[in-house]
Amino acid sequence: MSDVARLLISCPDRPGIVAAVSQFLFEHSANIIHSDQHSSEQGQGAFFMRIEFALSGLDPSEFRPEFAVIAQRFGMDWRLTETARPHRLAIFVSRQDHALVELLWQRAAGDLQAEIALVISNHTNNERLVAEAGIPFFHVPMSPTLKPAAEARELDLLSEYQVDTVVLARYMQVLSSEFLARFPAAIINIHHSFLPAFVGANPYEAAYTRGVKLIGATAHYVSEELDAGPIIEQDVHRVDHRHGPADLRRMGRYIERVVLARAVTWHVEDRVLLHGNKTIVFS
Amino acid sequence: MSDVARLLISCPDRPGIVAAVSQFLFEHSANIIHSDQHSSEQGQGAFFMRIEFALSGLDPSEFRPEFAVIAQRFGMDWRLTETARPHRLAIFVSRQDHALVELLWQRAAGDLQAEIALVISNHTNNERLVAEAGIPFFHVPMSPTLKPAAEARELDLLSEYQVDTVVLARYMQVLSSEFLARFPAAIINIHHSFLPAFVGANPYEAAYTRGVKLIGATAHYVSEELDAGPIIEQDVHRVDHRHGPADLRRMGRYIERVVLARAVTWHVEDRVLLHGNKTIVFS
Amino acid sequence: MSDVARLLISCPDRPGIVAAVSQFLFEHSANIIHSDQHSSEQGQGAFFMRIEFALSGLDPSEFRPEFAVIAQRFGMDWRLTETARPHRLAIFVSRQDHALVELLWQRAAGDLQAEIALVISNHTNNERLVAEAGIPFFHVPMSPTLKPAAEARELDLLSEYQVDTVVLARYMQVLSSEFLARFPAAIINIHHSFLPAFVGANPYEAAYTRGVKLIGATAHYVSEELDAGPIIEQDVHRVDHRHGPADLRRMGRYIERVVLARAVTWHVEDRVLLHGNKTIVFS
Amino acid sequence: MSDVARLLISCPDRPGIVAAVSQFLFEHSANIIHSDQHSSEQGQGAFFMRIEFALSGLDPSEFRPEFAVIAQRFGMDWRLTETARPHRLAIFVSRQDHALVELLWQRAAGDLQAEIALVISNHTNNERLVAEAGIPFFHVPMSPTLKPAAEARELDLLSEYQVDTVVLARYMQVLSSEFLARFPAAIINIHHSFLPAFVGANPYEAAYTRGVKLIGATAHYVSEELDAGPIIEQDVHRVDHRHGPADLRRMGRYIERVVLARAVTWHVEDRVLLHGNKTIVFS
Repeated sequence: MSDVARLLISCPDRPGIVAAVSQFLFEHSANIIHSDQHSSEQGQGAFFMRIEFALSGLDPSEFRPEFAVIAQRFGMDWRLTETARPHRLAIFVSRQDHALVELLWQRAAGDLQAEIALVISNHTNNERLVAEAGIPFFHVPMSPTLKPAAEARELDLLSEYQVDTVVLARYMQVLSSEFLARFPAAIINIHHSFLPAFVGANPYEAAYTRGVKLIGATAHYVSEELDAGPIIEQDVHRVDHRHGPADLRRMGRYIERVVLARAVTWHVEDRVLLHGNKTIVFS
Repeated sequence: MSDVARLLISCPDRPGIVAAVSQFLFEHSANIIHSDQHSSEQGQGAFFMRIEFALSGLDPSEFRPEFAVIAQRFGMDWRLTETARPHRLAIFVSRQDHALVELLWQRAAGDLQAEIALVISNHTNNERLVAEAGIPFFHVPMSPTLKPAAEARELDLLSEYQVDTVVLARYMQVLSSEFLARFPAAIINIHHSFLPAFVGANPYEAAYTRGVKLIGATAHYVSEELDAGPIIEQDVHRVDHRHGPADLRRMGRYIERVVLARAVTWHVEDRVLLHGNKTIVFS
Repeated sequence: MSDVARLLISCPDRPGIVAAVSQFLFEHSANIIHSDQHSSEQGQGAFFMRIEFALSGLDPSEFRPEFAVIAQRFGMDWRLTETARPHRLAIFVSRQDHALVELLWQRAAGDLQAEIALVISNHTNNERLVAEAGIPFFHVPMSPTLKPAAEARELDLLSEYQVDTVVLARYMQVLSSEFLARFPAAIINIHHSFLPAFVGANPYEAAYTRGVKLIGATAHYVSEELDAGPIIEQDVHRVDHRHGPADLRRMGRYIERVVLARAVTWHVEDRVLLHGNKTIVFS
Repeated sequence: MSDVARLLISCPDRPGIVAAVSQFLFEHSANIIHSDQHSSEQGQGAFFMRIEFALSGLDPSEFRPEFAVIAQRFGMDWRLTETARPHRLAIFVSRQDHALVELLWQRAAGDLQAEIALVISNHTNNERLVAEAGIPFFHVPMSPTLKPAAEARELDLLSEYQVDTVVLARYMQVLSSEFLARFPAAIINIHHSFLPAFVGANPYEAAYTRGVKLIGATAHYVSEELDAGPIIEQDVHRVDHRHGPADLRRMGRYIERVVLARAVTWHVEDRVLLHGNKTIVFS
């Protein structure tokens, strides 16, 4: 399947887009495998499309300039990705390992179509686990005073390892605006609550105190405002009066793992498109 | 929104279908509101498409012969429906009213885009309820000896009321092959189990005896073989050791109502396409 | 089953409670049908118990003074309810009917073990529906200036009809502190969001704007602070980028109905105990 | 928490059981942490109880003969377990590792209150993973001719490692009647379907062919009849027409892992009691 490509399109909706794109692909002998599209506001707003197709000998370097003509006509924001070049991830973790373990296992099982290029942590306890998986591990200690230098070091590593996307797998550190600016729409965080409920620290304790009957987790792109970026995926699990904060944390780990893994999988398969502060997910 | 139409297409997959259809619609000034498509076997099998578009002055009686040319080229099984003409339902019920009540309420709330043309029952207990909703009610008694005449009577009523689809809302009677032949892919049944588990009578008792931890309901098109037709929708609800057969029936009524209502809604909005004994649901 | 009673107990946890209560019931020939208990903080905090038992000739008027001796020894907050006297509900509604319809149907189906004593609304559109169910309907118009007199009228009606519990089935009005004080822990509201997310007005619009992937509903006891009372039940439903605010409202109606019906059912069956601002639900 | 014990009781229901048991525990200064009970058939059938209590200096070797007196009076089937002695598991696997990885991780995270005494496999591919976790791994090849000797070898290992419970984490082999007889109600299997649907081999292919809208997994005790033993836990995940058999297997792995982990956790915490071919789960 190395000759598969994906075309991602966002543009103002107007008649003729699908006709133009599909005609273009047909004329270039590109055989469509999957195609998803979405028109907001019943065809009156924005238009989004994801097409997965066999390149069938089509050369992406020829495709791009030719398609740019159509793209310009419709004012498209677009990109073409090739599955032959795997998406490269960096995973940032703190002490907790559950989200990391899940991603490592998904990668090993072949369910996550990406390379885990490196793991960065402000602790060392997960070093052996990562080493056993044959993945470079870097310990970058973090504190308010260390932060500028630590982030600079992290950015160097991300550059050196040609990372496309950063996954905060319970990293528990707030990234600076400068850091975020380097990876727009390419930093995914797992927050251990059903956002927008329980923004910030200790959401399980807050959930326990409020007496909710379902706990949740949210995977979202990181933006300047804490826990307010575009949501990619959420899920919940039922709890009741028998469950204390420790139970919520334990049960919550399941949801966090699954929700983050789903979000990362969709992201690396180019299934997530941005629409303002919201996402279109062609899952 | 009376000038909205839906084009439903099934055909062998091959390059150029989307280009041809979308070009046709573009040339006829039909503005696409929603479009869904599915290729089985990664573009090597069958192709399915549902397009909802504004007619924008386009006359369906002109559309049909012109589109037939494209349809023939690709070997399409297709149809065009107009939302201006509401889908007409007949609901068949036995004594239990929960699925009937749900459909009546959905209709009244405007969530079910269909006319309930008439209700037929082999009992009389639901007559008042139906009458109060302003819907014709017919009592057609049923027994092995009465069955041929009863079904003939039912078919006459369905014809008289120009019914498109029959909904068996816990009708509890097996329809004859002759009856089924008159409404291919247009009889929807709700079975009170998670099919294919617990086919046939008394599924809640069977579920209780087996000790399952989830009970379910299945909405499906009725085919010759009992409870074996194409599944449209299923859902489940958690149960445990505290629940006896009566509890399962009570809790199951919730699932039956919701599952049937979802299936009927999708069906009347032309969101369900058949693929052998399976369904494509563009929900 | 008219001779069934329920004993509800809350007290500080300490050894011997269960032994004393169960010995008392055994000596009074009360046959236990169901028993649930909960110790917070692993037996170091508060203790909660619900016992459903056959009275077997036991006279509640004799039971009470005798049990009071035990209750005093353990500092119990307790009550004995008899299922022979059905719980009496008042339903308050505004224009929307879905939560009302659900409760009426549950009552008719025998799933809700309570009398719906009356329905009060600040609109008249649901009058016919309620009348057809044979339930008294009262139109009590509401506005800032009318409010004191309207609430006085409502309280008179609740008193006249001997109402135990008020159900706000999408009533959309904030009750005064004076009103609330008259029905402590006996006013149940359905809020159309997954609390504490989207407190206040227009939660579906807020959920749409935030781009959540699940919408929810919450049934809770009404307290002074808006949408902050003890949560009885919550549930969610998956949504995606295709759903606009109207879709969320439509899909949300399903969840609201089910969540409210479950909460009211548990409440009238004495399955809900209060623990500070949280609930113990012996479902 | 090393001085915590659990008392498990099953007996015919009759008045006085709870009084006798709770009085016994009170007199022995045993402080109850959690207590669950269940009466089948509204107090007319069988009675089940699980009490978790602090031993508070109470010596189990004294407890047992004294409690036996009460047990005999009520015809109890009972046992007392001490959490100070961890439950010992053997995990049997074939080539697939997902269920094994989950149990290893749950153990490492402290969520599974048991020792994984050894892992047995008819393949060698998981040897390194198990060794890295510091757990003995044994390769016991399996074929029809090897089976008698292989099972004898397995039973020797189970005996040598003092195994309480065998977990078939996708072992894919049918155990002989002789083997089963050695571990009554102590062999847990994960079946990759929502039983009783899709008994036997290749359930995901069968689910795909039938066109179900939800796939599931079932953890159950192994009995003589294939996939027919008492169900401990089940769960499901939504699928649709876009998912082929490979997708169902991939999505199913999630459910299998979670369902098996929940069932094993409940089993080792003595939360599962047998009632004929069904389970009481005090989760």
